[in-house]
Amino acid sequence: LSGHSAGDLLPRGSVEVTREFLSTLVTLLLNYVEMENDRSTRVLEFRHPKQLEQIVDIDVPDEEEPANLYQLILDCQQALQYQVRSGHPRFFNQISTGLDIVSLAGEFLTATTNSNMFTYEVSPVFVLIEKAVLSKMRELIGWPTGDGIFAPGGSLSTLYAVHLARHRKFPTVKTKGMTSLSKRPVIFTSAHCHYSIPTAAAVLGMGTESVVEIAVDGRGRMSVTELEKEILACLERDDVPLMVNATAATTVLGAFDPIPQIADLCEKYDIWLHVDAAWGGGVLCSSKYRTLAQGIERANSVTWNPHKMMGAHLQCSAVLTREPNQLFSCNNMSADYLFQQDKHYNVEYDTGDKAIQCGRRNDVFKLWLMWRAKGTLGFERHVNNLFELRDYLVSQLKQFDDFEMVLEEPECTNVCFWYVPPSCATLSGNRRYERMGRITAVIKARMMDRGNLMVGYQPLDDKPNFFRMIISNHASTKEDIDFMLEEIVRIGREL
Amino acid sequence: LSGHSAGDLLPRGSVEVTREFLSTLVTLLLNYVEMENDRSTRVLEFRHPKQLEQIVDIDVPDEEEPANLYQLILDCQQALQYQVRSGHPRFFNQISTGLDIVSLAGEFLTATTNSNMFTYEVSPVFVLIEKAVLSKMRELIGWPTGDGIFAPGGSLSTLYAVHLARHRKFPTVKTKGMTSLSKRPVIFTSAHCHYSIPTAAAVLGMGTESVVEIAVDGRGRMSVTELEKEILACLERDDVPLMVNATAATTVLGAFDPIPQIADLCEKYDIWLHVDAAWGGGVLCSSKYRTLAQGIERANSVTWNPHKMMGAHLQCSAVLTREPNQLFSCNNMSADYLFQQDKHYNVEYDTGDKAIQCGRRNDVFKLWLMWRAKGTLGFERHVNNLFELRDYLVSQLKQFDDFEMVLEEPECTNVCFWYVPPSCATLSGNRRYERMGRITAVIKARMMDRGNLMVGYQPLDDKPNFFRMIISNHASTKEDIDFMLEEIVRIGREL
Ligand SMILES: Cc1ncc(COP(=O)(O)O)c(C=O)c1O
Ligand SMILES: Cc1ncc(COP(=O)(O)O)c(C=O)c1O
Repeated sequence: LSGHSAGDLLPRGSVEVTREFLSTLVTLLLNYVEMENDRSTRVLEFRHPKQLEQIVDIDVPDEEEPANLYQLILDCQQALQYQVRSGHPRFFNQISTGLDIVSLAGEFLTATTNSNMFTYEVSPVFVLIEKAVLSKMRELIGWPTGDGIFAPGGSLSTLYAVHLARHRKFPTVKTKGMTSLSKRPVIFTSAHCHYSIPTAAAVLGMGTESVVEIAVDGRGRMSVTELEKEILACLERDDVPLMVNATAATTVLGAFDPIPQIADLCEKYDIWLHVDAAWGGGVLCSSKYRTLAQGIERANSVTWNPHKMMGAHLQCSAVLTREPNQLFSCNNMSADYLFQQDKHYNVEYDTGDKAIQCGRRNDVFKLWLMWRAKGTLGFERHVNNLFELRDYLVSQLKQFDDFEMVLEEPECTNVCFWYVPPSCATLSGNRRYERMGRITAVIKARMMDRGNLMVGYQPLDDKPNFFRMIISNHASTKEDIDFMLEEIVRIGREL
Repeated sequence: LSGHSAGDLLPRGSVEVTREFLSTLVTLLLNYVEMENDRSTRVLEFRHPKQLEQIVDIDVPDEEEPANLYQLILDCQQALQYQVRSGHPRFFNQISTGLDIVSLAGEFLTATTNSNMFTYEVSPVFVLIEKAVLSKMRELIGWPTGDGIFAPGGSLSTLYAVHLARHRKFPTVKTKGMTSLSKRPVIFTSAHCHYSIPTAAAVLGMGTESVVEIAVDGRGRMSVTELEKEILACLERDDVPLMVNATAATTVLGAFDPIPQIADLCEKYDIWLHVDAAWGGGVLCSSKYRTLAQGIERANSVTWNPHKMMGAHLQCSAVLTREPNQLFSCNNMSADYLFQQDKHYNVEYDTGDKAIQCGRRNDVFKLWLMWRAKGTLGFERHVNNLFELRDYLVSQLKQFDDFEMVLEEPECTNVCFWYVPPSCATLSGNRRYERMGRITAVIKARMMDRGNLMVGYQPLDDKPNFFRMIISNHASTKEDIDFMLEEIVRIGREL
């Protein structure tokens, strides 16, 4: 490879060099996957930004003096060395983790076809696959018909939903804009919702103040009494209650808002109900845990990220609607150059006019391939397994004095806790929590430097920094949970 | 592989089965790439949606009875068979075409690391790479500093830009919404702009009527006289001129709006200048053709899609700004759980608070790897080569009576023309064009059925359907251009 440059690859170069280059790369990648799954490999080799800029050569060159293909392989190797191994069984830092091999195979194929999802004309198979997968997802929600589209992430899926809610109530905003409204539309969501709700409000020109945060109960679930109070206050102010966002598994505590009661209020006051199941959507695959999202079929729209609990690669997120045609009515701009109505096939299969994107990546093939590989029941097993690990972690936390749980009975597979240093044993009240909060960030910093483990942390309301363990990685086992707890204690005691 | 199922793959299964599964798939994919580059392979095997649903098995199963791994390979094979080969040298249907092998290698690595770009914490190398590539892109625009972010496609990049323009002039809209404005903000753009401009206006709550379409000259470029007239009319109405979108290579005709004169007006009236160089941005790599986008350095923001002229994989699009900090000020929501300020590294490297997404895919690695492989000068050669082919096509079209050009001297590598059937030789005026327009769609339908070639078509203004050849695929040669013209004549004569 060192005697060849990119010009020797297809289309101008040879098949043989192309094969050798890609095979060498794939061997490197397979070694990475093997190492990532080996617990003696570190999760990361942390370097501060300024250090890393010195170590890795990231120069973007001008010279035509091109790198030879071997040098490109070395470039890849270098990127892999300092990249965080987010598929490592001890990477618990994020909601989207893990490396599913079937999903990976799907991504390889997706990259090879480099398709654009906007028309049936150029993506016939993938458009049909998207249709079939969306239909299965709706079936799991409990909808006989409806619509949907894959969007680049849950935040944008939810933006679609808020946009739909506005379009239903104020269809003229599409042409005349919000300045034509005399009343202010309002979104209700729990105080613990994901920040994509205020983001959507800001982008859509509704403003973050149009988002009314509803207080949560002791377990992080939206208070229905408070919700009704706020709806009435909104009507009182002569504002328009537009949408309630119920979160099905909040980002930090993993709480499921009480959808049936919220749906009752939405019906009573004619409000669009969106369920943000970006994180918790996966429970719909499990007959054991789907009751957590009970009532979801009463929603008008749902955000569901298979790239979270179901383990598909980032990006894989869908927005689904109970009614058909809404996406089209809201988003179509009838671009002549793409969506000609005189095409020789049934143009209802073109998806582009439902989207706020034009070019759209194929995010669905990998998920379909996973579904083919294991069926809904395989996803059920996968989800149940994550909950079992959650139960194990909770039982361990309760057993040892080194920890204090933020929530004794988490609903989802988020488990939030503090490490309690020996020096806190005699403290109580605020001083105790302050110290525990301070030590959380310190432990995290050490954890990053040691590189054996990654767990996230954050404050919430009046609670100072605590660890948020997310059990979402199908590679993790009870031993990894044990290791995590031991490592935190080890670091904590050394401080 | 037929004796194994997905459960036998890592993390629970064995390295060996994982290797065999992925290697088998990669062999299949390499064969696909080889065939795609073989001109005797058809570009597509067209089937109508209902037929294809019968032929391919796209069922999304429930049963746990899982497919064996060999069956998954067959599923992949089936998808490949009926997928349009958009990297084929005779695929001219879209602006994003081709299959660059180095970009493909980049996508394979991206899939293997499955990283999330929102924090340095989890994507240290990729965050630095994104920074370096954005900086190089700004350098090519002509900006010493500034900012930028990769977004999922040009439409969303442009949405970012309109959002920034609004935030600069009306910073309180972020919190208070558009209903708090007493004046209506207006966007000016050419009548031939991409439909992502009205889409952005609709999504942002400004309404499509806030988009004023400026008439174009005979070559499809925005009329500066008309622009100033419309700005004055806007001020007269007591509306606020918010932004001018200048397109640097329009989607259909490939026109470059006159940026310097537009920039003068923007300065005069204090208007945000956005340049939509989604398609034409690639010319900035070429010292010969970059003058087409002259004045781009005077823009406040630029959309630039390396997934178009530069041949990177979809999705690869950036929005760039001349000033730093604007993206942050516009989009930050300070989510505690991700962007803790007490992290132990410099959190300025976290990009998430600049984005309207939360999870964000790594779209930059493939582009960086391409840049490493050939340098800016390699991109220059690539772009120049596309323009040479354009010149060749234009010379051929002018030589034969079978064709009539829509625009005699296209500025970009879009070449628009009609096939002139013999029966039109004696016709003139409307009847001639009507017939030519009708035959265009008929030829396209036959072309799809024959499967040797794909070229797009559309009407524009008073011009009925014509072919839009896009020269964007680095696999195409003069012979492919000849083939395209011959095939159209062949089909046309047979009708
Ligand atoms: C001029 C122009 N701007 C913007 C876009 C939208 O880019 P994307 O398809 O990546 O959303 C296109 C797409 O063809 C375009 O031609
Ligand atoms: C509850 C919830 N909703 C939405 C999102 C946003 O999803 P994405 O990161 O795909 O934009 C998240 C992300 O963690 C989430 O936890």
